Order: sequence, then structure tokens, then C-alpha cells
Amino acid sequence: MSLQPVLLAGQWRPASAAGTFRAENPATGETLPDEFPVSSWSDCELALDAAAAAATELRAALPKQIAGFLTRFAGRIEARSAELAAIACLETALPQKPRLIEVELPRTTGQLRQAAAAVLDGSWAVPTIDTKLNIRSLLAPVGPVLVFGPNNFPFAYNGVAGGDFAAAIAAGNPVIAKAHPCHPKTTQRLAEEASFALGECGLPAATVQMLYHLAPADGLRFVADLRLGAVGFTGSRAAGLQIKAAADAVGRPVYLEMSSLNPVVILPGALAERGGAIAGELAGSCLAAGGQMCVSPGLTMLFAGEAAEQFIQTVKVKLESTPPATLLSSGVAANLAASVKKLQAAGAELVTGGFGVGRNCFANTLLRANGEQFLADPNPLQTEAFGNATLIVVVRDADEAQAVVCRLEGHLTGSVYSSMSGADDALYARLAPLLRGRVGRLLNDKMPTGVAVTAAMNHGGPFPATGHPGFTAVGFPAALRRFTMLQCYDNVRSARLPVALQNRNPNGSLWRLVDGQWTQADITG
Amino acid sequence: MSLQPVLLAGQWRPASAAGTFRAENPATGETLPDEFPVSSWSDCELALDAAAAAATELRAALPKQIAGFLTRFAGRIEARSAELAAIACLETALPQKPRLIEVELPRTTGQLRQAAAAVLDGSWAVPTIDTKLNIRSLLAPVGPVLVFGPNNFPFAYNGVAGGDFAAAIAAGNPVIAKAHPCHPKTTQRLAEEASFALGECGLPAATVQMLYHLAPADGLRFVADLRLGAVGFTGSRAAGLQIKAAADAVGRPVYLEMSSLNPVVILPGALAERGGAIAGELAGSCLAAGGQMCVSPGLTMLFAGEAAEQFIQTVKVKLESTPPATLLSSGVAANLAASVKKLQAAGAELVTGGFGVGRNCFANTLLRANGEQFLADPNPLQTEAFGNATLIVVVRDADEAQAVVCRLEGHLTGSVYSSMSGADDALYARLAPLLRGRVGRLLNDKMPTGVAVTAAMNHGGPFPATGHPGFTAVGFPAALRRFTMLQCYDNVRSARLPVALQNRNPNGSLWRLVDGQWTQADITG
Repeated sequence: MSLQPVLLAGQWRPASAAGTFRAENPATGETLPDEFPVSSWSDCELALDAAAAAATELRAALPKQIAGFLTRFAGRIEARSAELAAIACLETALPQKPRLIEVELPRTTGQLRQAAAAVLDGSWAVPTIDTKLNIRSLLAPVGPVLVFGPNNFPFAYNGVAGGDFAAAIAAGNPVIAKAHPCHPKTTQRLAEEASFALGECGLPAATVQMLYHLAPADGLRFVADLRLGAVGFTGSRAAGLQIKAAADAVGRPVYLEMSSLNPVVILPGALAERGGAIAGELAGSCLAAGGQMCVSPGLTMLFAGEAAEQFIQTVKVKLESTPPATLLSSGVAANLAASVKKLQAAGAELVTGGFGVGRNCFANTLLRANGEQFLADPNPLQTEAFGNATLIVVVRDADEAQAVVCRLEGHLTGSVYSSMSGADDALYARLAPLLRGRVGRLLNDKMPTGVAVTAAMNHGGPFPATGHPGFTAVGFPAALRRFTMLQCYDNVRSARLPVALQNRNPNGSLWRLVDGQWTQADITG
Repeated sequence: MSLQPVLLAGQWRPASAAGTFRAENPATGETLPDEFPVSSWSDCELALDAAAAAATELRAALPKQIAGFLTRFAGRIEARSAELAAIACLETALPQKPRLIEVELPRTTGQLRQAAAAVLDGSWAVPTIDTKLNIRSLLAPVGPVLVFGPNNFPFAYNGVAGGDFAAAIAAGNPVIAKAHPCHPKTTQRLAEEASFALGECGLPAATVQMLYHLAPADGLRFVADLRLGAVGFTGSRAAGLQIKAAADAVGRPVYLEMSSLNPVVILPGALAERGGAIAGELAGSCLAAGGQMCVSPGLTMLFAGEAAEQFIQTVKVKLESTPPATLLSSGVAANLAASVKKLQAAGAELVTGGFGVGRNCFANTLLRANGEQFLADPNPLQTEAFGNATLIVVVRDADEAQAVVCRLEGHLTGSVYSSMSGADDALYARLAPLLRGRVGRLLNDKMPTGVAVTAAMNHGGPFPATGHPGFTAVGFPAALRRFTMLQCYDNVRSARLPVALQNRNPNGSLWRLVDGQWTQADITG
């Protein structure tokens, strides 16, 4: 069987391959039939030149063309949903139903359509006009965006169809997608539909390009290339930190989502009041998608006592009575086993699980440690065990709880469960502000899994969860901001201004900050 | 004379000094009498602990307290303006009038008052509310901000009174200022007034702290400390890149303004039409403040021909007929001489100047090169010659002009002069979009000096002008964004929400993005 082509400069063409690979069906261990190239640097060169040219052409594109592309692409994904789900299921072992077809695919097309709506609205660019001085500014496309998709969402975070892709395109940038090598065929199918949709909307054919795999050194060289505008990455901390270093060295904006334990704090009143129900929520949340979610709860804090022991027992029973999911790949399975060992080496004790149970499958795993252990060396006990394992830290009292919260690294989310009667309010007031600064999203009485794609969402947080605490990867229009630069026009003649900055409101509904007031009106001069 | 005290943890106290230094009067070469400490790491420790505590306390401060502080501080600076200007003049050789008293001081107090207005308004936090899902988010203080002030604006960019300071405080963060060692006494006087103003407003005394000097290694350790929220830096590229590397390694947000040539492109029609006037503007702009401005025009592009030669001649005459300013320090003078030598080594030819003329004074200097020389090795000819020197690059034709623009690094500004008759419009359409992506602020028919402090201003630009093209250091409220993190509240009980996210609009005038619409209304329901 011949080597699969890459999508470069508007064409499916043979890669300049430095090597080849095949994906594996994680459920069976079978090597899947298609052979994919590891691109050499000359493919990257071609992609970068084509993307730079497309970035220039895209400046002339109308909002309705870009929105049209995103919408048509969404429609095309839907039309091919059964096939896409079947392929993705083979490559990831994620169930077709409900996960792939009923949850992830609609989320993906929903994101593309929300991005399209943001393009048509235009307010994401924060057009700001000072009429007296004739100084005007807006957020503008930053240039070609290289998107590294992760293993855990073959559609919704795919480099060629997911959230980073949608945001980068909506902001007016071409995208070069680096597929995740665990699901190359899924990515290829998505790229095919993107390519068809581009042609239907008259956008530059190189607006979307896709490579399957790169040697690590080429990936880092790519990140640092001057033709690039920005980088989006979702994946492991180890890879993310390398990409961050390469980008930082040349001042390239890079947005990374690298790791998170999503701590859950259960206060004593809530534990007494509804510990059983919360234990059920925790078990459900940490087993969702085999625990392979960015916002899977990896660390839960309980206050020592009989109720805590009962809670742990309930979670244990739930985990033991639920069949473990097949993990995304043998790599995930091996990393999970290693991470659990690392947690044990750091003093955590196994409550249940901790061993493999067949191909790419690991027993649902619960570990526990106490606050003293955590405080003795907080970082090893914050090892992310990506998959169906979770740690409970039992603290002695409020002082120890506070100390633990103060030693948390940056995470995407933090949840606090408190009594409905007000019994925990003083403790909440003490701990929540400390947790607040360490997470991007603070939740009450709710597990972190389930990231709504909505304007106020923050899927981000302090380092090392991400590379910058000011940006979100999910939610429109905020997610677009990552792929922009601030452009100011000072005394620029009116016909030369971007339409969003001209006196007339271009679509009658664009929100602009004119002389300090948000308005949808024209500027009368 | 005893060692001057530092302002740490709310008190003027003796430094834990690793060394001492005195400032120099650049006009006379005299060492000024006061002796200042180089703080050792234990001062930094104290500052960091106190700032972390102040950050927590500041969360409870009311907008009117923070705004009150900024306003009172401005008033106190004004009340002491004659003394401040006299001290700053001694330390920097910048003239008291008009520069220090009539221009820089009002800009500084104006910035503090604009920051206060932004605090009272509150809309800078972009409160975003999705009512159906009860997900709410805003920009919140990021934590203690370390501000490194530059040498060239003893008031307006001072770490303890300037733009970064005002923005960081307005966003709700304590500031630790690292004075520029060229003007320690100016900084001390400003810190005194800040400290008095804090006491009058009931804010934590450690909201403002100040050190004069640090060993470079301690500075980098400071930048990377976990207690810090963000770093603001204005200064040289060499120092900025070191600070960036230290911050990036730990994922610390860092905002740097490092260098810029502020290219000016004069198209042939404009040159023919009004070359003499533009030459006068260029000479005036590049000599303003002895050329020691972030936005001083350091590189001008002309199209070859008689008009270009005449332009160069006019600039030469203007430079030769204007007495050179005393530079800010012997360091600036030495660097300027070295940079001019570097430009010459890269092929630039001296048109006038190029030599020292007495103490800390350098002849007004004009260099020229041609497009071919520039294109042969573009970076050496983009050496920043900070001070009263500027380079003209003469290009052969439009193709060469385009090639030169495409090799420009990132700069703060780019100006294009074009004919009023439309004769340059085609050339503008070709070159301006290329220049656009390489600069933060694009100007027409205007020199870059003179940065209006206004909402639409962008004092920023792509690397290496700054560390990130998405942020501005000047202009309220946009400048606040740098010192924030995005905080989302998911299902958080209403009484626990920040007031800006509660259903009631807290001041009746706060702009909030509620279900996709900007509104100042309360949320009902």
C-alpha cells in the first residue's frame, strides 16, 4: 500500500518523507493498514512558504467567506460523521456512541459554527477608536498558526478541525496542522473536508495544510521559523515545555495546554451532608473518557474523619464496579502505569487498582495520601496520571488544607464543594481565594469535566497548566485573541483603514469602543 | 553620609546591602552625593513576602480606594514638581523646561489619573456573563508585579510612578519597583509620595515597594520567584532578553519593551511634493530628547534620486545646526558611539557626526546605506543606535523597497509618508500591508515620536520590539490587561462572586458582555 499524501500548498501530494509510521488500534493491538509519512524539513518549508502567501491573501477575504468556510466545513463533517466516527474509534478506542458521534462531533461542528458567528459579528477584534486624535486600533491576524493536536480528542481538538483551528482561522490566519500520530486517518479525512470547503468559498487553498508527523527536531525548528505567526499546542507537559522553549527563544507567541490535576476540595459540611452523592460524582468524572480529559479530576482533598473514610470507600466501590476503558494508545497505558508508580514512590498508597488488565487497559485506580506527605514534597504528588487514576489527599485540619492549597501548581480548574446550610462558609472564605489564583476556572458543587463552549468559559490557567494565564483555548470569541496581534493606526487616511475602523459601522452590529463607550453606531464626523 | 533606605514592607528601612553606588550628573560628570544600596537577596525575600501578603489584602480593596490612591499620588507629584524636576535634571541632564516639568510630569500624573478612571469604571476587566449556564469570567489581578524602569523617562516610565506601575496597581496588584540606577533619588522621592498616598487611602502599606539596584543574578532570580505574578520591563534588548529567558523558564508572564528603530518610509511622491518639510520633521523627531526615546526614528527609507540626495542634505544641515543634547549617562554615550561604529562596520557611511563632543555628548549623527547593503545582511543595519543618530537607507526601486520592508525585524512603529495627490497610492498599497505586520503602530504622514496616552494607542509590537505582539504598554484601559489573569466562575454561588459578576451592575455604568451583548444594565432573572 502506498504512502498517504500530505496536504500542502493546496494539494494532496506525496510527502518528502523522512520515515513512515502506521497507527495502531488500541483495542486490539492491530497495526492499521495505512502507511503515513514522517515529513522531512522540505515539507515544512513548503508549508511555511504557502502559509505565508495565504496569510497575505487572507487579508483581502471577506468575513462572510471565512464564516462560510467554517460553516461549510461543519456541514461536511456532519455529512461524513458515521465514517469519521468509525475511523476515529478504530484509531483511539473511544466509543462511537455516545462519545464520538453524539458528544464530540457535535461539539466540534458547534465550535466551527460559533467561530463563524464570531467572524460575522467582528466584535472579537475589539475595534477601539479615539476620534479626536484619530488613533484607531484592533486585534488583527498574527500570521500562520501551527497547531499541534492532542491524542485525546480526535475531533474537538484536532489540529485541522478543533478549537485552536477554528479560532486561528476565525481570526484570519492560515493553519498548518500537525496531526497527532495516534489518529492520522481521522485527521486526513477531516483535512479532506476542510480542503473541499475552502474551494467552495474562494479562500486560498493553502489556508489549511496538514502534516501527519515530524521528527522532534523539525517540530522545534518549525515552531521557531520566522514565517510563523503563532503556535497552538495541546499535549503532554514534556513536549509542551520543549515547544515553549523553542518559541520563547524567538519571541513567538505560543499557547500551550500541558497538564492539569483539576483539584477538588470537599469541605467537611458538604462531606457530612452529601458525601455519598459527591463520591458518585467524583467517580463518574474521573472515569469519563477513561480519565483522558484535560479537566479530569486528579486530586481530591478531604478532611480526615469517618466521613472521609466512607467517601473513599464509596469511590473505591464505584471504581471497582465499573469496567475500565481501553486507553487511547499503548503510550498512554505505559505512561499511566509509570505515573501511578511515581505517585506511589512519592508516598501515595493504592486503595484500588494500580495494575494493567489486558491490552491498553488499566484497572480503575484510586490512591490516597495525607496532607503531611503532600507538604513534605508537593510536586511528586502532583504528577499527572493521565487516564483512569485519581488521588485523594486527606488533610488533618483547616491549617493543613490551607497549606496544601498554597502548594498547588497552576491547574485548569479547581472545584469546591461546600455545605448548602452555610456550615462551610468560613472555610470556603479562607480556602477559595487561595485556590482562585491557582486555577483558570473555579467551580462550586460541580466536577470539572464538561467544558461548555461558551463566551465566559476559561479553559486555561496558570503555568504549568498552560503557558500564560491570560488566555482561554475554549469559548468564542475569547479564544481568537490568542492568534492576533494588536495593530494601531495613527493618523492613517480613512480609505486605508480596515473597514472595522472606518467611521461607518460595517455591519451595523459591530461593537466598538469609541471614545470610551461601547457602541454599535456609526461615527459621525 | 549614610546609605539611603529602601522602601520594603511598608517602611523605609536600611537595605541589606551587597554593595553601594552613587548616581552621576551626566552634564558635569560629578558624582552625586547620596549613596544608595545594591540590595542583596534578603531584601528581595522581604519584598516578595510583603507583596504576596499585600496582593491578598488588595483583593478586599474597593475601586475607590485604589483610584483614590492613584489620584492622590498624582496630586502629590504635582505638589512636589519643582523639586522632582530639579533632582531628575541633575540625574539625567534632561531639561527641566519644557521636558520634565511641562511634558513628562503632566504625562505621568495624567497616566495615574487615567488609571484611576479605569479602576472606577471597571470595564477593563471585561466581565463576561453567560446567564443560562451561570458561567462568568473576568480579568483579575495576576499577583505582585516587578517593574524595571528604564533610564530615559525618569517620571513617565519610572518603576514607582510610570505607565507600568499605574497599570499594575489599577489592575489590583502590588508593585515592587526596581529603580533605574541612573536616577535613584528621583525614584526615592516618587516612592515617598506613593507611600504617603497609600497611607491616606487605607491600602496595604506594601502595595508599593522600591529597591534601587540589584546584582544581575538576583534580578533574574527575582523574576523567576513563585511569589511574583508578572514582570514589566523597559530597557535594553540585552537586559530584556535575559529577563525574558528567566521568566519564560518558569512560565511567568513578562512584558518587555526592548528596542525599536521605528522605520519611516518616504514614498517618491511625498518626497517630490514636500521633501523639505518632511526632512525637517525627521530631524526634529530624531533629535527629540537627544534621540533617547523608544519611538525615535532610527531608520528612514528613501527612493534613490535627486530628491533623496536633497532630503539627506537638508537633514544633514538641520542636524549640524542643532546643538547636541547631553545624553542620559556615560553608558548611553558609550553605547551610542559603539552602535554607530557597528552600523559603519555593517556598511553604513557617515553623512555627519559620528564622534563625541565633550562630556556625555555625541555629535548629531546621520548615516546612510543603500538597499543592496541592507539586504546583504539586514540585522547589523538594524542595530539600535539609542541617542541622536539615525540611518537613511536609499533603495533603488519598489522591488528593493519591498525586499527591505520584508527584512525588517519587529518594531514599535512604522510611518509611511505618501503624496497628497494619490501619486503614491499603488506603492502604499504594496508596501504598507507588509510593514503593517512588522510594527505595532502604523502612521501616515507623521513621525513616531509623541505617544498619546489614549485608549486606542498601541505602544507595543512584534518581537524583538517587545516580547508579545498582543499587548500595549501605553493606553488605558488596554495596558492593564498585561497584569491580569483570566478567571472564570462556573456555578459559583452568587454571593461569592466578585461584585462585577453579580447580577446587579455594581456602579450602574460597568460595561459587561452579557449573553453576547455589551450592556450596562443589571441582569434580571
